[in-house]
Amino acid sequence: MTAENSHNRSATNEGISFAEAFDLINPHLYTVEERIRAQAKAFDPAVEGYISYICGAGGKRLRPALALLAAGATGKITPAHVDLAVILELIHIATLVHDDIIDGAELRRDQPSANAKWGNSISVLLGDVLFAHALKLSTNFSNSDISRRIADAAAEVCSGEIIQTQRRFDLKLTTTDYYRIIEMKTAALFSAACELGAFISEASPTIISGLKAYGTKLGVAYQIYDDILDIAGSEEETGKTLGTDLQKGKFTLPILLLLQSGKDLGSIRDLLLKDDPAAISELASMVDRSGVLENSKRIARTKISEAVEHLGAIQENRYAGGLHAIPNHLSHLLDQL
Amino acid sequence: MTAENSHNRSATNEGISFAEAFDLINPHLYTVEERIRAQAKAFDPAVEGYISYICGAGGKRLRPALALLAAGATGKITPAHVDLAVILELIHIATLVHDDIIDGAELRRDQPSANAKWGNSISVLLGDVLFAHALKLSTNFSNSDISRRIADAAAEVCSGEIIQTQRRFDLKLTTTDYYRIIEMKTAALFSAACELGAFISEASPTIISGLKAYGTKLGVAYQIYDDILDIAGSEEETGKTLGTDLQKGKFTLPILLLLQSGKDLGSIRDLLLKDDPAAISELASMVDRSGVLENSKRIARTKISEAVEHLGAIQENRYAGGLHAIPNHLSHLLDQL
Repeated sequence: MTAENSHNRSATNEGISFAEAFDLINPHLYTVEERIRAQAKAFDPAVEGYISYICGAGGKRLRPALALLAAGATGKITPAHVDLAVILELIHIATLVHDDIIDGAELRRDQPSANAKWGNSISVLLGDVLFAHALKLSTNFSNSDISRRIADAAAEVCSGEIIQTQRRFDLKLTTTDYYRIIEMKTAALFSAACELGAFISEASPTIISGLKAYGTKLGVAYQIYDDILDIAGSEEETGKTLGTDLQKGKFTLPILLLLQSGKDLGSIRDLLLKDDPAAISELASMVDRSGVLENSKRIARTKISEAVEHLGAIQENRYAGGLHAIPNHLSHLLDQL
Repeated sequence: MTAENSHNRSATNEGISFAEAFDLINPHLYTVEERIRAQAKAFDPAVEGYISYICGAGGKRLRPALALLAAGATGKITPAHVDLAVILELIHIATLVHDDIIDGAELRRDQPSANAKWGNSISVLLGDVLFAHALKLSTNFSNSDISRRIADAAAEVCSGEIIQTQRRFDLKLTTTDYYRIIEMKTAALFSAACELGAFISEASPTIISGLKAYGTKLGVAYQIYDDILDIAGSEEETGKTLGTDLQKGKFTLPILLLLQSGKDLGSIRDLLLKDDPAAISELASMVDRSGVLENSKRIARTKISEAVEHLGAIQENRYAGGLHAIPNHLSHLLDQL
């Protein structure tokens, strides 16, 4: 695509692609990436190597992208926005280190996870030290409302994971419980990224709360997508081990809808509590035959539409176009499943 | 003791006892205790019960006591000092939750530990959420230097524990390494309590840095005492399981001095790497016979003297007397070992 085309396509909010949205913020994302990798140097030399490994593993950097797009959609992208992006990603990385311990995950982005590499003890502490470091960086904002909101989002992520862990293998889990859990564990950081991106730009309260709601709905939709993937995706395509939610007793939307459908309840419950590979593949094919995947996708698409509606008050510019491109891309990914 | 006596004995810095020091700040410590117990309500109802259990378990509240005494020694005890005391203790509690996972400890203050009660997964997340909550509370200070210093101390505690965990069963660990580890894992919060207590009182830079150094030395001395206790204390008297450091491969001062003494090196090393109950009791009796306990106590007393020297610039008042009473009491505990 030529630069002119790109410009034309960026002229309306809905006119830019996912890749173009990332291109738009690429120089800032590059800085974020460098800053994330440079954090290791802030640690004691004995700890530096671990942090360097963990922070260097890469990732989709969705939270930084949202913070930067929200920034550009509401003003100029400033160094404070880059700080925000770095801090939110560090918190996300810290939670992943602890998630991998809890899930006993061996791989993270095709590399051995911290727990696989150095054991659970060191990994608990590495998550802690990264977390403390991220919250220390957040005290540099001139307005303490920002660091308070970040710490709040971090606490929400942990609370959501506590509830999720507490309710593993709980056959009484409802879809309402599920939405609440994913709103906390996933959407809280998405929401903080969008809200604070606009807050730092000194956007109006309407715009800030609109972006916060956008982030929440988008985060929920994204987690539903990820949960569908775990039960119906292909390992070759995703490059990660699937079926782990069921194995760990995390009942996600497709399973909850399957239970709601009321058919074969007894055998579904038996299979859910069995958590062996045969039971998991039997459940996956029941999900496949039952139509609950389509229902799950429909619900995710509804959340996406709701996310996009919250962008209504935002003035059109290329970054606002990027904020549209992300849910559009997620819709596209759902279509491909 | 009558009130008059108490007053007279408090007239000089060195004249009050450990119990009197705690009496002096008792109303504030009571508020701290109530505030710590009340924190559970700030969490999601599904998480509240866990936090309430963890925060209700009690403890010596040494860090709050130091913050309050440093406050009183340099000015008036204000609500900000109480906030500081609450936050530092919450961080300490969060680190204990994770320590118990790492050490596989079943008991904490005569109650089942969080990991014994709910397993490691929930406990990792409970430590995280408490930690995030404490750092969120710290964003309420009007001066962000305070929350930055708190997050920094928290990161230092974790880094110290990482190094300690990394160097378990490491026969090349030196006493220098050991001092560095305990300065980070234990003294960092002691030091922050004293430093920030004075900082909030707007004491002079000399007083603030004196109290910071006092906290560091006191923390180091306290950890040496605790480490001696683990190898030479009596379980009936301490009410806790002893010998756990050796079992976990944490080589503390008495062991490092034993290795330095150069006698029976081969068999000491063999026993250290064995980590079974018979080896541990054999090591304990070697420690007992060798005189390294006395050397360890001597070193702890030197650290105590150094701590007290740093109080030199502080004006005499009853709270400053309390700051003397704590190391004095620690000296007394060392004498009793």
